[in-house]
Amino acid sequence: MIKVSIIGNGNVSYHLVQAISKAEGVRTLKVIDSRMDMLEETGTSPKPTLGAQKTEYPDIYIIAVSDDAIASVSRKIRKTKSLVVHTSGSVPMNTLPKDVRKGVFYPLQTFSKGAKLDFSKIPICIEAENKDDLELLRKLAHCLSDVVHVIPSEKRSYLHLSAVFANNFTNYMYRLAEETCMKQDLPFSMLLPLIRETANKMERLSPVEAQTGPAKRGDLATMEKHFELMNTKEHKEVYSLLSQSIQQTYGEKP
Amino acid sequence: MIKVSIIGNGNVSYHLVQAISKAEGVRTLKVIDSRMDMLEETGTSPKPTLGAQKTEYPDIYIIAVSDDAIASVSRKIRKTKSLVVHTSGSVPMNTLPKDVRKGVFYPLQTFSKGAKLDFSKIPICIEAENKDDLELLRKLAHCLSDVVHVIPSEKRSYLHLSAVFANNFTNYMYRLAEETCMKQDLPFSMLLPLIRETANKMERLSPVEAQTGPAKRGDLATMEKHFELMNTKEHKEVYSLLSQSIQQTYGEKP
Repeated sequence: MIKVSIIGNGNVSYHLVQAISKAEGVRTLKVIDSRMDMLEETGTSPKPTLGAQKTEYPDIYIIAVSDDAIASVSRKIRKTKSLVVHTSGSVPMNTLPKDVRKGVFYPLQTFSKGAKLDFSKIPICIEAENKDDLELLRKLAHCLSDVVHVIPSEKRSYLHLSAVFANNFTNYMYRLAEETCMKQDLPFSMLLPLIRETANKMERLSPVEAQTGPAKRGDLATMEKHFELMNTKEHKEVYSLLSQSIQQTYGEKP
Repeated sequence: MIKVSIIGNGNVSYHLVQAISKAEGVRTLKVIDSRMDMLEETGTSPKPTLGAQKTEYPDIYIIAVSDDAIASVSRKIRKTKSLVVHTSGSVPMNTLPKDVRKGVFYPLQTFSKGAKLDFSKIPICIEAENKDDLELLRKLAHCLSDVVHVIPSEKRSYLHLSAVFANNFTNYMYRLAEETCMKQDLPFSMLLPLIRETANKMERLSPVEAQTGPAKRGDLATMEKHFELMNTKEHKEVYSLLSQSIQQTYGEKP
């Protein structure tokens, strides 16, 4: 049985606790607020809770806080003998203090309140300094997910960059679509089946094969018409740049 | 029973035929190749097939061909008494010949070979010149889908523009993500749960609420690190413009 304590009260922490509560072979000892000053003491010599038989230490501390808080939060627990990991895609493992056993446990997903996630399908990217710790992380990851990859920090930063395209920028495309609808009192919900199917297509086609639209076809008439419909600089700039890039890729220039 | 003939052999035609075959209250008389020279004759006085009791005419011709072929294909059937509609998001109804009863039947979805689509959830946008024809189209649309909207040509062009953002440009974001993965021999399939959840979020959050990422947070350090990882002009330009736009929206400028 792997025992973990999770530091942080955000969405990653919430979903981890949920997933662990349903998993076998792992349990959560504590969820610790990252603002606590006494993490160090908590980690090394916690006060026994009333009626507890003995003091329990976690095998792994999972730091699930915002990227820029990882360094300072992790310094609070540096005297521990437990493995200390963070859950960030973009922060190198070596951001964690020198004098702890360290690693990374990065679930490649977007976590939000109210989401029902199938954790077993979420790729978990792990990294550690030595084999034993890597095996411990692999065991933990396999308790939660069927998809576990060993990914070193540098490679993970590329993965995080690709997630920015696939998640952050994709969401921004949804936003431009919503703004276009709103201008004409069209409900954004009309686009939901299209948004779903655009994502579903990736199960069976590569993005290169799945590309459609006026820019792909080199359909200048439609692109010009679209340009006339847009009335913000922002929409026009994004439309122009992405259409040009798509046209360059497919070699169907005017 | 509404009788339709469908002109065109592409993906929209294929999925329409499939949906109609499962629907009640509508049946497909013929699927006609758009390259046929004899559509006019076919439409007005088709040769009776062997054993047929009487010549059947469709109530509606559905022209499901590429946007730039709609005008020429529709001219081939202009002597018909049937209602003639096209299925395009961006082509005005009046592109159809003057001397036919005309309309639009635009299913707002991306259609590809091999896709299993639940047609009942696909919004169908209809338009016609007069009430009777609009009612006929509404009846046809409701045979196939639970979601039917009357949308005039101008409004439909905005809907089509928003579909370019939500589908074409979103797919392009997937592509940039795939290219980023490929550079590091990371399988694109690792991103599929993220892509699915990014789309799923739209069921319960608006894109404005769902936005996350370094640009939203104004996290310059991560953005600069990402910039160093990219080695094509195209990736850098898209990353810069979209990050700037997101930063402007959320007002978290450096």
